[in-house]
Amino acid sequence: MSKQKLTAILLLSCPDRVGLVSRISHFISEHYGNIIDLFEHVDREEGVFSIRVAWDMDHFSIPASDLKITFATIAEAFHATWDIKFLEERTRVAIFVSKYDHCLLDLLWRNKMGEYCIDIPLIISNHADLKPLSDQYDIPFYHIPVDKHNKAVQEQKELELLAEHQVDTIVLARYMQVLSANIVNKYPDKIINIHHSFLPAFIGSNPYKQAFQRGVKIVGATSHYVTADLDEGPIIEQNVIRISHKDTLKDVIRKGRDLERVVLARALQLHFEHRVLVKGKRTIIFE
Amino acid sequence: MSKQKLTAILLLSCPDRVGLVSRISHFISEHYGNIIDLFEHVDREEGVFSIRVAWDMDHFSIPASDLKITFATIAEAFHATWDIKFLEERTRVAIFVSKYDHCLLDLLWRNKMGEYCIDIPLIISNHADLKPLSDQYDIPFYHIPVDKHNKAVQEQKELELLAEHQVDTIVLARYMQVLSANIVNKYPDKIINIHHSFLPAFIGSNPYKQAFQRGVKIVGATSHYVTADLDEGPIIEQNVIRISHKDTLKDVIRKGRDLERVVLARALQLHFEHRVLVKGKRTIIFE
Amino acid sequence: MSKQKLTAILLLSCPDRVGLVSRISHFISEHYGNIIDLFEHVDREEGVFSIRVAWDMDHFSIPASDLKITFATIAEAFHATWDIKFLEERTRVAIFVSKYDHCLLDLLWRNKMGEYCIDIPLIISNHADLKPLSDQYDIPFYHIPVDKHNKAVQEQKELELLAEHQVDTIVLARYMQVLSANIVNKYPDKIINIHHSFLPAFIGSNPYKQAFQRGVKIVGATSHYVTADLDEGPIIEQNVIRISHKDTLKDVIRKGRDLERVVLARALQLHFEHRVLVKGKRTIIFE
Amino acid sequence: MSKQKLTAILLLSCPDRVGLVSRISHFISEHYGNIIDLFEHVDREEGVFSIRVAWDMDHFSIPASDLKITFATIAEAFHATWDIKFLEERTRVAIFVSKYDHCLLDLLWRNKMGEYCIDIPLIISNHADLKPLSDQYDIPFYHIPVDKHNKAVQEQKELELLAEHQVDTIVLARYMQVLSANIVNKYPDKIINIHHSFLPAFIGSNPYKQAFQRGVKIVGATSHYVTADLDEGPIIEQNVIRISHKDTLKDVIRKGRDLERVVLARALQLHFEHRVLVKGKRTIIFE
Repeated sequence: MSKQKLTAILLLSCPDRVGLVSRISHFISEHYGNIIDLFEHVDREEGVFSIRVAWDMDHFSIPASDLKITFATIAEAFHATWDIKFLEERTRVAIFVSKYDHCLLDLLWRNKMGEYCIDIPLIISNHADLKPLSDQYDIPFYHIPVDKHNKAVQEQKELELLAEHQVDTIVLARYMQVLSANIVNKYPDKIINIHHSFLPAFIGSNPYKQAFQRGVKIVGATSHYVTADLDEGPIIEQNVIRISHKDTLKDVIRKGRDLERVVLARALQLHFEHRVLVKGKRTIIFE
Repeated sequence: MSKQKLTAILLLSCPDRVGLVSRISHFISEHYGNIIDLFEHVDREEGVFSIRVAWDMDHFSIPASDLKITFATIAEAFHATWDIKFLEERTRVAIFVSKYDHCLLDLLWRNKMGEYCIDIPLIISNHADLKPLSDQYDIPFYHIPVDKHNKAVQEQKELELLAEHQVDTIVLARYMQVLSANIVNKYPDKIINIHHSFLPAFIGSNPYKQAFQRGVKIVGATSHYVTADLDEGPIIEQNVIRISHKDTLKDVIRKGRDLERVVLARALQLHFEHRVLVKGKRTIIFE
Repeated sequence: MSKQKLTAILLLSCPDRVGLVSRISHFISEHYGNIIDLFEHVDREEGVFSIRVAWDMDHFSIPASDLKITFATIAEAFHATWDIKFLEERTRVAIFVSKYDHCLLDLLWRNKMGEYCIDIPLIISNHADLKPLSDQYDIPFYHIPVDKHNKAVQEQKELELLAEHQVDTIVLARYMQVLSANIVNKYPDKIINIHHSFLPAFIGSNPYKQAFQRGVKIVGATSHYVTADLDEGPIIEQNVIRISHKDTLKDVIRKGRDLERVVLARALQLHFEHRVLVKGKRTIIFE
Repeated sequence: MSKQKLTAILLLSCPDRVGLVSRISHFISEHYGNIIDLFEHVDREEGVFSIRVAWDMDHFSIPASDLKITFATIAEAFHATWDIKFLEERTRVAIFVSKYDHCLLDLLWRNKMGEYCIDIPLIISNHADLKPLSDQYDIPFYHIPVDKHNKAVQEQKELELLAEHQVDTIVLARYMQVLSANIVNKYPDKIINIHHSFLPAFIGSNPYKQAFQRGVKIVGATSHYVTADLDEGPIIEQNVIRISHKDTLKDVIRKGRDLERVVLARALQLHFEHRVLVKGKRTIIFE
């Protein structure tokens, strides 16, 4: 019997049919796993079954290292897309930033508070401004300036750093460069961006200015997975804040900072706890 | 094989242990039920397991009429508190009102729109004011004035009406009388009230006036099950609305009307879809 | 000295300069008006001064009928755009609807509750569905079906009805037809629409479906003045509601109904209390 | 003519009567002040007039140093309570903290971002934990442990420090001690606290635990001026966040942190911009 202090998390999606929950939960209980969290969702129009199950590995009779191989035969029978993670396994995260510090500071502080189970082996930036903040939290900071001419070369350096540090997830914490397909395609559903508008409104640059000029009464922020299509990736979390004619553009930007950090923080929490399942352009959030 | 067009809903709570989901889901799948919704919650501190499972009865091999008896043996082994409902079975609802029409109108309109699966065989009021509205929706209206002296007698009449109409759930849609234990104890977790404050703030009468005088910046509304302790019942839903010094007491009351109807509407939807499990003074909301 | 029970409301906008508030407030006080509400806004970037002043006409030494003429000389010196209204003067409102009843019911109920100071001499619809509801509130209902071929003719009828009933403001309470320039241009900043999306996201038809397919986590509603450019008019009020992957399109539409009615209600309150000043594509909301 | 780059702010409250706005705005314009912001509020039930006026001192013909003396004669005629501040004059702020860093970090970061126009000459704490954070922002940190026996002595030290550093406003950023009347009475409407509940619900200690046990669906935070009555001071700002049965007490505390910092930040912004007028237990917020 295993002695590991672990919580296993299965995320699985497959064509719906009778007996799926039963088969999965039987697999867990027959090996003495205690389910502590289970969310199931059936999209009846599309006929798709999705599930997130978390169970205690305390008395589980299959070692963590063999779990995926053992479960694979069941998953194959279901024609499922799936993965198993362990909640206590620290995700390795690279943060990309430019000059704005609010999202980075918030993320580092939350991590210090124990809100996330992650390691941050490196911060990459196209500007040097946030090196002092990275230093305060003892995280290696790589200043990699990017312009039109050196983009391919610099992204190659970034890819090497990401590989070297065994990075699993990339957070774009107000990184003001567009990543090319070279990077994006290597990290599918693993790059999380915070866009400072209520997508799909105000796609592109300067969304607060666009919002201000349109005279909207509410501005938003959106955290999404990065795909090849800019600002079109699956949305993880959104939120909004009320503005009025009394707010100057500067006020809107200030209010937006408060919004961006909570939206990104929430999206990251969901991602790091393996609560997000991507289905095409949409996400299922198990919470 | 049954031909009924039904969705069964099991609400169950018991001491936590290994294999509960597996046993329940196996029971469903072995009789050819397809689970369409499953929420599980484990309170690890209290060691309590709670679940709501919904499944298609289309091909279920046990007739709806025998379902409870068949499941009882499983539930007994778990020492569970449980119930099985059918989503398409119309809950029989009595509405108690006084003079305010906003909650009643909203409830009747939502029911007409098909938001709830209920029948409303009667409306009871201590005032005659809302008879015309009841008439518009063709619902029998009973005017039963209540004062200190006749309360016991009048409540007896009400109990007889409730029994006669086989009422399952009572909605106090701004009913300005306190029900005595005679009625409350006959309908445990079946009487839903809307209180016009963010409980436990401003318990008792005139909460908007209390809020106004205290100078709060936000007022709330709370929908809860009625228990013997006034305003102390398990909370189903709460929400709030922002007020300012510019709002007079009249404005607060007007804003409160908008709040009360959405809070009550949401609580009723949760109750009528069997998504609420009462645990002491708290509720588990499966949504 | 006047005996009228009236509250005058001045809405004024002009190039900013020293002494504007002083001149306006002096005009009011020298004629024994007591200011009960004053909001001033200076857009320092554009150099534009805007104000809303409300004052008691109880002891005002200029009769209401002469007020505009008397104030005109002051306003001219400021090169101002302005208007004076009386809060107690009932705005004459025509409501256009199609088949959905939620906005109409809400509007009629609020008016009955005294939330607005308006008269509703007529309801116009391209469908007959909402005649019974109009009848309940004793408001004449005109069924004027519109299609591609008869639009010009039918709109001419509508214009005649609007003129005949001396309509000041038109509310499109989920009216599913686009008004042509013939009508729009006759009622500048007087036609209020409720669009069921968070504009400028999801312009055009079926916004809830668009939102559902994009996988947003929040849907919105927008009330705006109607201009020649569809969905581009100045926004009066917006609000949002959270949705999740568990919501079907039908759920989104249901939640949207709740949202639409409060957003429209709020916009109408602001408009009927003369709290909205249109500046290009933006609005100043004096509240 | 003065050359100072200043914005004057008058906060004034007095019995309502005709001509108040006129007299005040005339005073400003006759000395060549340009009003850039004016909010007026009349409490018609109490007959109380309140106003906040902001004007450019660029061409003002009275020097800033003489402004209060000159205005005093007008204010006396109105029997007014009033004050004049200059927006660009930096408020001197002492921050009291214990062990939690979230409010302090947020406040220091916002100040660094230029959100406030304040100086923070010192941080006082009954624990040493937050000294490193104070050091990062180069602010002197005084560790003054307080217990039942030394409270009077230690508060005397604190009062001396406050006097020495000419402190105007005290922020209790999750300071876990109750200030005695000695301090409270010396800083009327100048001590701002953040209480981690939606007051008046859950007064006293451990409000999140109280909220958790009561099973509320929403928790709040309240920022208020400190008075002799604990948790009874005038409320400046409140906000709430939704919780569910899935949240453990630890989750509620984590969510609460996010709430506390935005509620305190908003209250401080209002206070530092001189937008708060205290009227008994209530506040008027000019925004």
